[in-house]
Amino acid sequence: RGIRVGYTPDVLTDATAELSVALLLAACRRLPEAVEQVKTGGWTTWKPLWMCGYGLSDSTVGIIGLGRIGQAVARRLKPFGVKKFLYTGSRPKPESAAEFEAEFVPLTRLAEESDFVVVTCALTPATQGMCNKDFFSRMKKTSVFVNTSRGAVVNQEDLYDALAHGQIAAAGLDVTTPEPLPTDHPLLSLKNCGEWWVILPHIGSATYATRSTMAVLAANNLLAGLQGQPMPHELLL
Amino acid sequence: RGIRVGYTPDVLTDATAELSVALLLAACRRLPEAVEQVKTGGWTTWKPLWMCGYGLSDSTVGIIGLGRIGQAVARRLKPFGVKKFLYTGSRPKPESAAEFEAEFVPLTRLAEESDFVVVTCALTPATQGMCNKDFFSRMKKTSVFVNTSRGAVVNQEDLYDALAHGQIAAAGLDVTTPEPLPTDHPLLSLKNCGEWWVILPHIGSATYATRSTMAVLAANNLLAGLQGQPMPHELLL
Repeated sequence: RGIRVGYTPDVLTDATAELSVALLLAACRRLPEAVEQVKTGGWTTWKPLWMCGYGLSDSTVGIIGLGRIGQAVARRLKPFGVKKFLYTGSRPKPESAAEFEAEFVPLTRLAEESDFVVVTCALTPATQGMCNKDFFSRMKKTSVFVNTSRGAVVNQEDLYDALAHGQIAAAGLDVTTPEPLPTDHPLLSLKNCGEWWVILPHIGSATYATRSTMAVLAANNLLAGLQGQPMPHELLL
Repeated sequence: RGIRVGYTPDVLTDATAELSVALLLAACRRLPEAVEQVKTGGWTTWKPLWMCGYGLSDSTVGIIGLGRIGQAVARRLKPFGVKKFLYTGSRPKPESAAEFEAEFVPLTRLAEESDFVVVTCALTPATQGMCNKDFFSRMKKTSVFVNTSRGAVVNQEDLYDALAHGQIAAAGLDVTTPEPLPTDHPLLSLKNCGEWWVILPHIGSATYATRSTMAVLAANNLLAGLQGQPMPHELLL
């Protein structure tokens, strides 16, 4: 009561979209496993299918939540040769989707047709636990799931089962439930953890440039607040 | 003598360009180190600069060798907010550079001005050992070096020194000298190996789709050769 709250909007769109693409590529091209193979001597002679992954060329990408970050992800993925973009959300956004010729589809169809699913929606009562057993069971066995929004959008037990039983090929998570994820969590004990799937410690906005911009915005909010002036970015509750 | 040789041209451009971007992002956003932090309990509370990396927004990217793969890399990096592309090579290629408004510069200027350097040139007498002590000493301390062409383009001892002494921030290598790299190689003993820098086991073309296309081309070459017919793709020596 009476406590004014500043925030730092919009500044992390680019860094988070960049990290989403990094995570998708790391998962689908098996980067952590490949690094490990170099260190442990698994790298020997050339073999036709050794360390092969799934590329983006001619693929279908499904984006859950075509907001600022979702659009920034699609914009970055497009020149990789993506054939078709699908998206889902609370309503169609034709103005946002036009740039990617993205098609608005129900969540079930997005799961069934996508080679790559990227979750970039907000956490709301409608999206909580949305990626669940039914969702993963509809995905292709060769598909890759990436979440850089909020951990609770995913039913983590259902994701664990989908990975453990090979219902999907790979996953990349920058967000989990809880955070930090305990080091003895079942997700980290899966045999293929850190190989075909990748868990990051919520570093979506972690670039020096973004964090510096956030710090300046926060300082300006604080200075204005201390002087009793309107904050440049004030949360109006 | 009298032995006909088939090859599989052009089919790995997309997969290799994709892997180049994956490697660049993994190095600059510190993905292997971040994965390790999750596994070992280094992920605790939020800290402003923890695990921060260098993003592509507003950056200058230097491409050594603007051939098919170099162009495909630039095309993929452009929507990440790259401000300026530089390139170098045996001659200016205005027709290839136009799409990216890329500027042809000497190697020294490319080293000095680039935030990210990506090597995608062929290995020739002119490019062998081209990325050497002088080259790395001109690079920015915050810059990231990526090589997905051939290991011998880089003087590996000089790269080791540049990394060990913090002359550059990070490196991502999909190619080394020799291959496979011995597991006791000095590069792998650097304290920060696999963290700010990333070595992969030459997986540029390692996608199921690409390797399958390569196999079909190779088989068609072989069948034609066995029948004494012109191969679809024959190396004329």
